[in-house]
Amino acid sequence: MADKKMVEEITSMDEDFAQWYTDIVRKAELVDYTSVKGCMVIKPAGYAIWELIQKQLDARFKETGVENVYLPLFIPESLLEKEKDHVEGFAPEVAWVTHGGLEPLQERLCVRPTSETLFCDFYKNDIHSYRDLPKVYNQWCSVVRWEKETRPFLRSREFLWQEGHTAHATMEDAEARTIQMLNVYAQFCEEVLAIPVVKGQKTEKEKFAGAEATYTIEALMHDGKALQSGTSHNFGDGFARAFGIQYADKDNTLKYVFQTSWGMTTRLIGAIIMVHGDNEGLVLPPRVAPVQVCIIPIQQKKEGVLDKAYELRDRLKVSCRVKVDDTDKSPGWKFSEAEMRGYPLRIEIGPKDLEAGRCVIVRRDTREKIECDLADVEKRTGELLELMQKEMLERARKHRDAHTYVAHDFAEFEKLFTEKSGFVKAMWCGDRACEDQIKEKLSVTSRCIPFEQEHIADTCVCCGKPANKMLYWGRAY
Amino acid sequence: MADKKMVEEITSMDEDFAQWYTDIVRKAELVDYTSVKGCMVIKPAGYAIWELIQKQLDARFKETGVENVYLPLFIPESLLEKEKDHVEGFAPEVAWVTHGGLEPLQERLCVRPTSETLFCDFYKNDIHSYRDLPKVYNQWCSVVRWEKETRPFLRSREFLWQEGHTAHATMEDAEARTIQMLNVYAQFCEEVLAIPVVKGQKTEKEKFAGAEATYTIEALMHDGKALQSGTSHNFGDGFARAFGIQYADKDNTLKYVFQTSWGMTTRLIGAIIMVHGDNEGLVLPPRVAPVQVCIIPIQQKKEGVLDKAYELRDRLKVSCRVKVDDTDKSPGWKFSEAEMRGYPLRIEIGPKDLEAGRCVIVRRDTREKIECDLADVEKRTGELLELMQKEMLERARKHRDAHTYVAHDFAEFEKLFTEKSGFVKAMWCGDRACEDQIKEKLSVTSRCIPFEQEHIADTCVCCGKPANKMLYWGRAY
Repeated sequence: MADKKMVEEITSMDEDFAQWYTDIVRKAELVDYTSVKGCMVIKPAGYAIWELIQKQLDARFKETGVENVYLPLFIPESLLEKEKDHVEGFAPEVAWVTHGGLEPLQERLCVRPTSETLFCDFYKNDIHSYRDLPKVYNQWCSVVRWEKETRPFLRSREFLWQEGHTAHATMEDAEARTIQMLNVYAQFCEEVLAIPVVKGQKTEKEKFAGAEATYTIEALMHDGKALQSGTSHNFGDGFARAFGIQYADKDNTLKYVFQTSWGMTTRLIGAIIMVHGDNEGLVLPPRVAPVQVCIIPIQQKKEGVLDKAYELRDRLKVSCRVKVDDTDKSPGWKFSEAEMRGYPLRIEIGPKDLEAGRCVIVRRDTREKIECDLADVEKRTGELLELMQKEMLERARKHRDAHTYVAHDFAEFEKLFTEKSGFVKAMWCGDRACEDQIKEKLSVTSRCIPFEQEHIADTCVCCGKPANKMLYWGRAY
Repeated sequence: MADKKMVEEITSMDEDFAQWYTDIVRKAELVDYTSVKGCMVIKPAGYAIWELIQKQLDARFKETGVENVYLPLFIPESLLEKEKDHVEGFAPEVAWVTHGGLEPLQERLCVRPTSETLFCDFYKNDIHSYRDLPKVYNQWCSVVRWEKETRPFLRSREFLWQEGHTAHATMEDAEARTIQMLNVYAQFCEEVLAIPVVKGQKTEKEKFAGAEATYTIEALMHDGKALQSGTSHNFGDGFARAFGIQYADKDNTLKYVFQTSWGMTTRLIGAIIMVHGDNEGLVLPPRVAPVQVCIIPIQQKKEGVLDKAYELRDRLKVSCRVKVDDTDKSPGWKFSEAEMRGYPLRIEIGPKDLEAGRCVIVRRDTREKIECDLADVEKRTGELLELMQKEMLERARKHRDAHTYVAHDFAEFEKLFTEKSGFVKAMWCGDRACEDQIKEKLSVTSRCIPFEQEHIADTCVCCGKPANKMLYWGRAY
């Protein structure tokens, strides 16, 4: 067992956050690197988190009337080029297929970086009348963007996501759906991932290629950097005009549809790691923990210990995701491994516990040890999982709030981004030049114009001109 | 409503089975064609079937210890080339990515046609010791094969599937897993899709590129053609030797692993259509029907009718997938549509039914009408769905058996394939030349060497030499 990586220390997050992150994703066995540059293998422990994300997010989608579909992986070059802003945004970072089998293709195909153009091409034939609206479709798939710098989950050449694409009769309907899905995302992050988010609109500079308006949820990682965690776009009728997607309205006139799209990705797993993880490893919110309770027998060769462990597992598996670590590793090793993998609760049970009719439950987040009567195990673990889910969100919210600052002028703004790390709220005149200047000087970007506005000052933090918009600023992943 | 396609007759299956199939997939709104040649859009009604297949198959996998993972979409050319037979089998039909962003790639990448080489590359680093074995991984993804002739679900340039890839310490373990998964497939087809299958081994000629042995389940479509519905391959240590995948055994010597792979695809939806469909449209086995019960109100504007329909839905949705068709179409239209879409049961409820406290349940497969007391609806629909699932399998089995013939010599063999359509059982000497000759003369391929052997004759149906293997032969999709 000396060759096992688990015993090695992982880098402390205060010492080198980036290295800590890399250590976690490898040692918690979430991903592996591959021969394909910039692409990753998502290993069972990582993929099981994604399955739990998918299942719960998909259920929330379906409650709002979303239907799943599957569109092709490839986009013909001429199709990608139909909407001007969109192609400018994506063409520089797509992978091109030029040969099929042994022959060159007549037209290059790109591997989808996102599927607006394919959905438009489909809707063009699928939508005829107002009776066909709205269309509220979604697909779960992988997309490819030829990134230069990559990091597991956060930025990779291929990643998994869902992309919703809808078509509506009016601009109001499209806007309502755009906001509805942003709210689904925000609630999902808070209720399932225990990650608090700031909801707001992207500036013109930061919006999606081809969108009229992009809305975003922004989360703050433990190191004070921002992570864009989900976006929802209102396209107006821009794509519909470019692709000719029209419907016959009740008055029998032809009208263009209004469209939206919205997406979340495997990057959420990166967010879970960076919001909740600690120096012992991953800490998984119970609702996305593939193993919620890990039972670790102590002196497992002693009579009755393993049997009791299996009995507990069989009792618990009705109400939670549970496993017994019955390998021949030492208990101390198993504790470390359970911590590294972020299992929310571990249950320790040994000969003395058997005699006393109790066990010890240890919370991963607080490391609190709770003695528990064996008769109460189901009830107690259920309560603890609920409590932990709730407290993890509270803790993340406190951290986020403690690292959200206010800047009244540029000197203060610059000082905050030099000395602190977090969100900075500041006023903005609405001029792109100010965003450009701030980015150039401080490597800081506008994260969003939050829905919850505050009046911090009368003037723009950059140029000093009158300002009536408050922005969140941050260094972003 | 005159522009709606539903009223048009679909081509009769006896007149033109291929056109009937195309009509069904379009009019039941399972797929749509796209601007991307050979690729399809899987629409909500089609994708919902795939989701039910995935969910139930995945659960069966997990019961046997399968863990899900995700590997890259791309395979570097040098990796694809490592196993000689494998590259020869696949290189002629892959799509090649040659540019990433604006720059040419140093090495071409193919879009995965299957992922043996990627799993090998991964296992090479992931497997060290006998403690790491077995690895029983699976992924759900899309793959690409540059087919010339394509048909929705049956053969397309991109399709959805699952591919399991396992690694074991011994050849026996690999063989056991290969057969175990074949059995999972066969049971899934019979129990969930109501499709009976013949289990057997592929001949050398028909086996998978790089496999030592390929096992298959073969189903018979309504037109008497065969459809290979799932395959399971034992690779021995061939890939392990090509990729250098070794483990330290208990005695501390390095040994090569033994591997398997197994897959099922969206082609199963084609099988469902072609086994169960009729001239009114799709007929879905209840277990994969996204809508199991469709409630159709008669004279829905009369007081109480719609309310009762919704009440029935709310009562039924606890135990089955149910919807009310409350659109403003006529009942007759709704009946046709429910038939076209293959909903297993429809419930008709009108003012007279309300008075009498009953409704009418109509089975999609037999079109039998059952009067049902409103108080008994949950119980009765539950029973009928179970019964229909069972009888659809029995009916398919009877059809399959009635179209399975025996040939003792070549004259008989040729006559059967000229006059009949179905499986033909016949003896084979084991010589590939006979397979080649039969394929050339009759466009017929060996489907499998069934596990259940019969001694039909002493000599090969083709060459007349001594033969001790019985094969299933057929024309295949």
